[in-house]
Amino acid sequence: MRAEVIAVGTELLIGQLLDTNSQWLGEQLTLQGLDINFHTTVGDNVGKISNAMRAALARSDFVIVCGGLGPTHDDLTRDAIAAVKNVRLVPDNEIEKLIGDLFAFRGLEMPPANLSQALVPEGCEAILMTRGTAPGLICPVGLKYLFALPGVPHEMKEMALRAVFPKISEVLDERGERAVIESFTIKTWGLSESKVAEMLSGVIAELEANHEATIALLASAVEGIRVRITAKSASSAEVQSVLGKYRQKVEEILGDSVFGFNSDTIESVVGRILAERSLTLGLAESLTGGMVSSRITSVPGASEYFKGCVVSYATEVKRSVIGVTAPLVVSELAASEMAHGVRERLGCDIGLSLTGVAGPESQEGVAPGVVHLAISGPGSSKASRELKLPGDRDRVRELAATSALDLLRKHLLQGA
Amino acid sequence: MRAEVIAVGTELLIGQLLDTNSQWLGEQLTLQGLDINFHTTVGDNVGKISNAMRAALARSDFVIVCGGLGPTHDDLTRDAIAAVKNVRLVPDNEIEKLIGDLFAFRGLEMPPANLSQALVPEGCEAILMTRGTAPGLICPVGLKYLFALPGVPHEMKEMALRAVFPKISEVLDERGERAVIESFTIKTWGLSESKVAEMLSGVIAELEANHEATIALLASAVEGIRVRITAKSASSAEVQSVLGKYRQKVEEILGDSVFGFNSDTIESVVGRILAERSLTLGLAESLTGGMVSSRITSVPGASEYFKGCVVSYATEVKRSVIGVTAPLVVSELAASEMAHGVRERLGCDIGLSLTGVAGPESQEGVAPGVVHLAISGPGSSKASRELKLPGDRDRVRELAATSALDLLRKHLLQGA
Repeated sequence: MRAEVIAVGTELLIGQLLDTNSQWLGEQLTLQGLDINFHTTVGDNVGKISNAMRAALARSDFVIVCGGLGPTHDDLTRDAIAAVKNVRLVPDNEIEKLIGDLFAFRGLEMPPANLSQALVPEGCEAILMTRGTAPGLICPVGLKYLFALPGVPHEMKEMALRAVFPKISEVLDERGERAVIESFTIKTWGLSESKVAEMLSGVIAELEANHEATIALLASAVEGIRVRITAKSASSAEVQSVLGKYRQKVEEILGDSVFGFNSDTIESVVGRILAERSLTLGLAESLTGGMVSSRITSVPGASEYFKGCVVSYATEVKRSVIGVTAPLVVSELAASEMAHGVRERLGCDIGLSLTGVAGPESQEGVAPGVVHLAISGPGSSKASRELKLPGDRDRVRELAATSALDLLRKHLLQGA
Repeated sequence: MRAEVIAVGTELLIGQLLDTNSQWLGEQLTLQGLDINFHTTVGDNVGKISNAMRAALARSDFVIVCGGLGPTHDDLTRDAIAAVKNVRLVPDNEIEKLIGDLFAFRGLEMPPANLSQALVPEGCEAILMTRGTAPGLICPVGLKYLFALPGVPHEMKEMALRAVFPKISEVLDERGERAVIESFTIKTWGLSESKVAEMLSGVIAELEANHEATIALLASAVEGIRVRITAKSASSAEVQSVLGKYRQKVEEILGDSVFGFNSDTIESVVGRILAERSLTLGLAESLTGGMVSSRITSVPGASEYFKGCVVSYATEVKRSVIGVTAPLVVSELAASEMAHGVRERLGCDIGLSLTGVAGPESQEGVAPGVVHLAISGPGSSKASRELKLPGDRDRVRELAATSALDLLRKHLLQGA
């Protein structure tokens, strides 16, 4: 069966706001086994919104409309649905009370405009709100369904998960159209997208030939290349068996470039290894200015294994606080001294360091993009690496931070 | 005149990729004085793409299509344009040569599939590519124009700026439809969106009454509330005078909550003040784990005023490296000692510190969201502040980092 998304809001058309709702809904509806043919974005105009709804209902079984449910005169989704269904808007007492309670709770008087949010087109069912003042709507139109959800992403997602997807699921069951679709993501660092494509060309050809699953390569500067395998079948067991088979093939081919799966990040994987082995970590950062430390501490529970970081941005801080003696502070020797020095001063099992040139200017005659990484510990083990990174200041810093975390991951996995 | 955007690609419909092109194009086309009525996203199907083009051309004077210009059999934008114009696709020798040169330069053989990228619908003009293998297209359709651009954002933007916007500009001039539209953004921190709306209600009412300009409030957790004023007129001088008038009114009302304008960030503003006054800064961070330091060093030239940071995540590092003696490390006293200690150890004019509980767990009996900030220097001046921040771990950390930078900004501006 088919679904499509309509995003409502002039602010989306003129670029004041980035529409992330359509992407999320597209992904979720696809995972429900639905085919998606269109996304439309339309401004705050009742004629244009209702025309977009009619066109979408002519093409698709489920239409999800996001936005236009607020209390102002620019919020026209309710009126457009009433026009499409050719019905009146009637006040819903329960919703009026909910909105009134919300204002009372905050000690505020309810502006009369908010009462418009309690209007429901006849024949539609309201989705009660838990996070804002906008209720959602479930509107049958013949055998098809039109759903209206608020435009604020966290309100939209909560209502979609609680009321819309279960309703779609129920309809799919009733009509014998249910399919199980599941994905598994394999995350890599250190390989280019074209290199991953080349390495996996055999697997991709096999998948294209036997239609058991689809594979997508997704690139992101900070997260590396992700390989997503998606399988569709009548039973979850069958889907899991197909995903497991291809996961194994992909892992075997990509080897230790694979750092994790699904919601893993390099920092969460490194944190898990450190916690498992009861090792503590300290950092010395220069060009990244605290980015690695900030990523490590973004993981809840990082205090179990993370002691701290010295951002030795100025040369004199490298010398006075961490004890660097190397004449050139962008060098392998300086990186080693930073790793060793911070390990000692912070009293940790492992010191990890980064020094380099982020740009735009060269430093000590070293070009932007040159970065030295070093690790001291655990025990007498150590590692170091020189990188030559492409891109501007932001990109060099981001790539350096992820590369340092990945070097530490490999160092720990290689039995250090 | 009217414009609209069509994004082509099944990967956009199923949520594998977030469409940021439509937002950027919507913003740029609006700044050219065009009205935007629709964005459409359509999958890789020649019939659906050509229908979307026909519908868009019926409604708008300029249609920009993004994506579907690659070398594979899924890239169908060229075919769809040929169908809409009812013409043949003919090979363009210059583009064939450019593509061939690109492969030769990389020492690779050109796959025959890439030759499809050199096909141009009759009556259309190619936009030569400088960054990828996909040329763009300028296609007159009656009195209207259809433009095709690659889907890769940096290729798309480069071609839009070089060939599409100048062409639109030329058509607007020829038809006497040119208007000057310019925006000015005022950036604030520390006020809620509804508070800013309330404070500016008089200005908003005045603008709505006299139609001189429009005002938009844009919210972002890290950047605070931005107030964007946009004016449209026949001359740039007139636009600037209107923007200047309302900028002054808004600044007077919002006072020192305004931290900057247009592309300013709090970290760039703080950096500018420090550089102007030849002051140096050192940081001591706990719950933010290096985020403030990372933001300060994201500004090119930060080494002029930034010495470094100690991320004292573990209590023992607060004591041994920065000399904190306060029994409770999430307290006003601990924050003051951190600011003072890091200033001394790093030898800077100013020390800025953050300590607090990011969550999800409480610490020392203190609830998540409680944060203490402190400043030591320049000279004998000092400042401190306690915050109670809402939201999850990520949000508490982000809000704490921006609040610390803003406290430092105000401290410096108040003559410290």
